[in-house]
Amino acid sequence: MSILVVGSVAYDTVETPFGRAEKVLGGSASFFSVAASFFVPVQLVGVVGSDFGEKELAAFRGRNVDLEGLERAEGRTFHWQGKYSYDLNSRDTIRTDLNVFERFEPKIPAAYRAADHVFLGNIDPVLQRGVLDQVQKPRLVACDTMNFWIEGKLDELKKTLARVDVLLINDSEARQLSGEWNIVKAARVIRSMGPRTLVVKKGEHGVLMFSDHGSFAAPAFPLEEVFDPTGAGDTFAGGFVGYLAGARDHGDDTLRRAVVMGSTLASFCVEAFSLDRLLKLTRPEIDERFRRFKQLTHFESL
Amino acid sequence: MSILVVGSVAYDTVETPFGRAEKVLGGSASFFSVAASFFVPVQLVGVVGSDFGEKELAAFRGRNVDLEGLERAEGRTFHWQGKYSYDLNSRDTIRTDLNVFERFEPKIPAAYRAADHVFLGNIDPVLQRGVLDQVQKPRLVACDTMNFWIEGKLDELKKTLARVDVLLINDSEARQLSGEWNIVKAARVIRSMGPRTLVVKKGEHGVLMFSDHGSFAAPAFPLEEVFDPTGAGDTFAGGFVGYLAGARDHGDDTLRRAVVMGSTLASFCVEAFSLDRLLKLTRPEIDERFRRFKQLTHFESL
Repeated sequence: MSILVVGSVAYDTVETPFGRAEKVLGGSASFFSVAASFFVPVQLVGVVGSDFGEKELAAFRGRNVDLEGLERAEGRTFHWQGKYSYDLNSRDTIRTDLNVFERFEPKIPAAYRAADHVFLGNIDPVLQRGVLDQVQKPRLVACDTMNFWIEGKLDELKKTLARVDVLLINDSEARQLSGEWNIVKAARVIRSMGPRTLVVKKGEHGVLMFSDHGSFAAPAFPLEEVFDPTGAGDTFAGGFVGYLAGARDHGDDTLRRAVVMGSTLASFCVEAFSLDRLLKLTRPEIDERFRRFKQLTHFESL
Repeated sequence: MSILVVGSVAYDTVETPFGRAEKVLGGSASFFSVAASFFVPVQLVGVVGSDFGEKELAAFRGRNVDLEGLERAEGRTFHWQGKYSYDLNSRDTIRTDLNVFERFEPKIPAAYRAADHVFLGNIDPVLQRGVLDQVQKPRLVACDTMNFWIEGKLDELKKTLARVDVLLINDSEARQLSGEWNIVKAARVIRSMGPRTLVVKKGEHGVLMFSDHGSFAAPAFPLEEVFDPTGAGDTFAGGFVGYLAGARDHGDDTLRRAVVMGSTLASFCVEAFSLDRLLKLTRPEIDERFRRFKQLTHFESL
């Protein structure tokens, strides 16, 4: 079992009410890969510039993350800078320098093409389909997208969604994509576009999953200190797809545990800047917090 | 077992994106009583004006709601008028005519003073304490409050909270009362004021409970049609306290089921204007939706 992930590897400059981190490792594929690598080997496809250092690569080394697909291009690495509100519930993008990411065209190494799980980060939906054209016969294709593509390339996005098994997006994206405010109605519309399973991420309010088996709701883990929410959604996706791939089964019980595993990994991610907490994380810590999720949500029948 | 509830009985005029209801039965004590009466007898203390009709009283008759404590005063009944936003997530109060409610001083009939469960609706905290002075030795005192008292009568409110076992408030009230944005920190501050159990209502995002047993999270039931959120919080409280009173036990398992029961009742409340859905509700429907809450949230351990 292995997961192919395609997405951004970036430098982030982040300001939160608790501090500032300058040019630290970020990007959807970075968070996803490290989270998923707790469960199965990960094959990363992305692009960095000539400024991308050995220090950042060290985050992936010594883990189950294959970097053959991490292209190094002439120029600077994608750089995102953002600032969070005092309550961490909203953020302003101060600048986005796409740099080498602007011309990113995912090339899937031959050794990756048999991947049985594929995660498409929120890149251009045309490029997402390009990835699917290069792989053989994945058992599961999971996908993220964002408001930029919903607004600007809806038709292309719909073509991509028709080939996707699981879509993971946040609640405002679900509303925008479906044109429905009510999330239950939004889920029905989106699932008719292709993805049989829709995972709606609601940040501090948890996750709703809609699948052929019905719906499932999980809270976010109530944390006393949320330090930096950057990457929480990608970390969720890494835990979710990673758990599914490791379980070698996509039944309802497994999907539900995968949601909780994604929430578990995300709850660690937000405890520090960048991937700092994830890189120190151990499997026993993960299992212990999963167990606490169970305590948090369990109730007996009548 | 019985519950004494003190709060408002009112006329509501409500506009939602789906329609308008003119001078229909509302008020915290009304929603609470009808919800709680599915579990134990309820003793209602409130005040209505001379305009309050037999039609509205009919909502309580034929249920386990004792109206000896419902005072009828010269003048008009409390009238609230509000209008919801297109997404139902915010509402504007168009007018509040307190009318006879302005001079409400709860007088607890002798027959009610042995009540073992007391629910104090969000009236003046001085009046809330007045109620506690009139009752004998309740096993459990639950309480609601609102931003108006947090802003205007904080010291009085704190004196009341010192005598309360369970506080049920929404997330913005919890933040305001504690001065903490983070809900886990807010809960610690509020629980140090007196209530050993704090229930934080988050509307469509569910409920968080903090108690001596730890924390518990429950989602709201994902509904395809939310018609009118008015009264959902009071209905939650009615289901919560009603279930606790009926269970004759306040252990962790019971508290958790009480949260889900409150959420179950609230999910019916929002399906129609006023108490319309609650008045048609049957116990088998309640149990069936509780069962669906279990399906919605259940996952297996690792």
